[in-house]
Amino acid sequence: MDQTEDKTLESEDNFGLSPRIFDQALDAIEAEDAPALEALLDPLHPADIADLIEQLDGRDRRALLELAPSAVDGDVLSELDENLRDAVIPQMAPEQLAEAVRDLESDDVVDLVEYLDTAQQEAVLDALPASDRVAVEKALAYPEESAGRLMQVEVARAPEHWSVGEAIDFLRSSPTLPDQFYHLVLVDPRMRPVGQATLGRILSSGRDALLKDIVEDTFITFKVTDDEGDIARAFNQYHLISSPVVDANERLVGVITIDDAMNVLDEEHAEDMLRLAGVGESATISDSTFETVKQRFPWLIVNLFTVNLAALIVGLFDHTIAAVVAVAALMPVVASMGGSAGTQSLTVAVRALATHDLTSSNALRVIRRELFVGLFNGFVFAAIMAAVGTFGYGNSLLGLSLALAMITNMVVAALAGVLVPVLLDKLGFDPALASGTFVTTTTDMVGFFSFLGIATLILL
Amino acid sequence: MDQTEDKTLESEDNFGLSPRIFDQALDAIEAEDAPALEALLDPLHPADIADLIEQLDGRDRRALLELAPSAVDGDVLSELDENLRDAVIPQMAPEQLAEAVRDLESDDVVDLVEYLDTAQQEAVLDALPASDRVAVEKALAYPEESAGRLMQVEVARAPEHWSVGEAIDFLRSSPTLPDQFYHLVLVDPRMRPVGQATLGRILSSGRDALLKDIVEDTFITFKVTDDEGDIARAFNQYHLISSPVVDANERLVGVITIDDAMNVLDEEHAEDMLRLAGVGESATISDSTFETVKQRFPWLIVNLFTVNLAALIVGLFDHTIAAVVAVAALMPVVASMGGSAGTQSLTVAVRALATHDLTSSNALRVIRRELFVGLFNGFVFAAIMAAVGTFGYGNSLLGLSLALAMITNMVVAALAGVLVPVLLDKLGFDPALASGTFVTTTTDMVGFFSFLGIATLILL
Repeated sequence: MDQTEDKTLESEDNFGLSPRIFDQALDAIEAEDAPALEALLDPLHPADIADLIEQLDGRDRRALLELAPSAVDGDVLSELDENLRDAVIPQMAPEQLAEAVRDLESDDVVDLVEYLDTAQQEAVLDALPASDRVAVEKALAYPEESAGRLMQVEVARAPEHWSVGEAIDFLRSSPTLPDQFYHLVLVDPRMRPVGQATLGRILSSGRDALLKDIVEDTFITFKVTDDEGDIARAFNQYHLISSPVVDANERLVGVITIDDAMNVLDEEHAEDMLRLAGVGESATISDSTFETVKQRFPWLIVNLFTVNLAALIVGLFDHTIAAVVAVAALMPVVASMGGSAGTQSLTVAVRALATHDLTSSNALRVIRRELFVGLFNGFVFAAIMAAVGTFGYGNSLLGLSLALAMITNMVVAALAGVLVPVLLDKLGFDPALASGTFVTTTTDMVGFFSFLGIATLILL
Repeated sequence: MDQTEDKTLESEDNFGLSPRIFDQALDAIEAEDAPALEALLDPLHPADIADLIEQLDGRDRRALLELAPSAVDGDVLSELDENLRDAVIPQMAPEQLAEAVRDLESDDVVDLVEYLDTAQQEAVLDALPASDRVAVEKALAYPEESAGRLMQVEVARAPEHWSVGEAIDFLRSSPTLPDQFYHLVLVDPRMRPVGQATLGRILSSGRDALLKDIVEDTFITFKVTDDEGDIARAFNQYHLISSPVVDANERLVGVITIDDAMNVLDEEHAEDMLRLAGVGESATISDSTFETVKQRFPWLIVNLFTVNLAALIVGLFDHTIAAVVAVAALMPVVASMGGSAGTQSLTVAVRALATHDLTSSNALRVIRRELFVGLFNGFVFAAIMAAVGTFGYGNSLLGLSLALAMITNMVVAALAGVLVPVLLDKLGFDPALASGTFVTTTTDMVGFFSFLGIATLILL
């Protein structure tokens, strides 16, 4: 669970930070009017303050931190984009940082510090009470993006033989309950979770009812090393609200709640989208120019290389182009249609791989379907382009070349769109990882080669 | 909340349906071995049975429904893709359908029937008890994708002046509590929600504590007409677990829970991804060939039209191409680099618009950043392509033309990538709606025109 949510909401239209508030904050920053700025930030939810900070440029951000240092507490830091935490934390005084993180739960501190550089991480850890520090360091020992990092260690648990009355008495007298919890986890004498009861069931049952008689039927435990993406999918698939996490000895070590799982799902989606487009997975709208270039440059270089290969292919046919200049005008049509169709089939496949709807069980059937779709589209667009070649460009043989190349490239596009991500997945790579570049490279090359090759055979 | 989750899980690796189980089910279907099939399906979670049905082809799906009709209950129907519900429901006998939906909560029935055709909807509604039917019909009167459709009408609520003890006694004696609930909503005498207390706080407080003293600090209510996408974003932004829904008179009419919000967020993401690629938003891997063609054809036709326009642009420069054939080989380099860069900037912008991180407050700053990124990339790739033209193609003027066109197109690409979705958003369209096609069309045209135009001026 995240945050002690102790702020009312700035809610207009979309329940987010309104442009009006943003503009007022900007005015207050520019006027160096600290009281006005604090009055403006005070009623905002931490998530909205974080959004506001993300939308400021570097200079205004520094000014805000100087004018209203107390507005940036641990909850706001938790909500900030990772890239911005790197920028904001060094600007905070040590005692300000200590004050900010003191009230956070262990999983929030882990989330806050895990990607900070060592010096900054040390600064935050130093600010924690000793026991919290141990919990955070333990979590950081688990692999990145694992259940161990995502879970909170504070768990409401009870012996499996307890009654509802015993549980309620225990909860009333327990000083160390989590901020928010939805289940009471039942454990055996060896601390292994054996089931969990919803608080709703506990509240609506009599004091004499046994906890083990009102446990939920669906009960999943995760291992500390499980991948957070798989966990998020499981929460969505099975409508989980919270689930226990166990160590290698099956002992209860923490609990993961759905709000954190939802956050992971959201991030995984963003990563898929960005990777498909060949953008660094952590790209956000508030990144600096330099960061943006760094995220995008690598795949542009790859694309530059592959498209120059495609140019070499076109160069092989310079005699054909010199003889019938119209082929130069029409070759992008074949390539582009392949690129569009390939991207369509790719996007559906990447999504289905992410949701585990595309598996080895149905891969062959999906490939067969894509083949039919490619053939159908190929024939339809072949007919259209045959007409364009014949009537538009006055050359029926050109039309024939276009048609044959179109069928070829549409089939290749449809197949590449599903085979590239499936292959990447089989090889253990992320199927979204710049699949887009691979697929459009393929359709460019096949488009140019098939059209120019066929045109050379037919027209010359 | 969804489903009475009364099944254990098929969990291997990814907590989903394992290929092994799928293959065994397929064997049982082919052997027409009903007992084996039922034994296989019985321990599965409804979500996994739905996945299994989605991965079958039409013939095997019909066979499964005949062999093991009881395996497909209301929970399984709820989990099925919409497209498949259309196919499965007509294959169920009326009494089988009635049996299936009887135990569902009202929001699950709404989710199940809202996109069915009228005859099928009628068949399901007829199967419901009269009171449930009224609730479902009332929900269906709200706009599609609104809070009114997403909420459950069963709400655990209490008068605002009650104590913890009164609340617990009420919950213990109440026969009509929701299956799962996480908050007790406090209402005033006019049934307007005034706050909510988590069950955790209620359970850990003494019987004498007043509910109004333990309410949560963050309290958001949604209107029945609010858009489900905005609601899902608000759940993720503010870490909500459940939130009351009010009608036009501010009266409590239902509650939305985070698991449904998570589901909506997941669907919205899929829609964004698919729309960006010009695929019908409801596309799934289990669609038939015909459905797939129907989803993808419209944007391919649009692309065919625009790329033929690009071909006309190239055609304007046939003298240049005839004179220096290498320009035909190199023009796709300029176009493709623009397409890649534009898609990168577009994807980041679409994501930021969806999360409300790109607003009128920072749009100008983002546009400025994209401009710098485009200029930087343009100059770097211009330098590389100048070298390629000069040394690879032995023509320094060709290199110069490439360089100038590259700078032009990279800047245009970066700007188009952010301006197209922002403009679509301003005009009230979905910013993801085939932005990809608009952007690559722009970069194709500008790429061809700038390179061929500059080459004509410099080389001829």
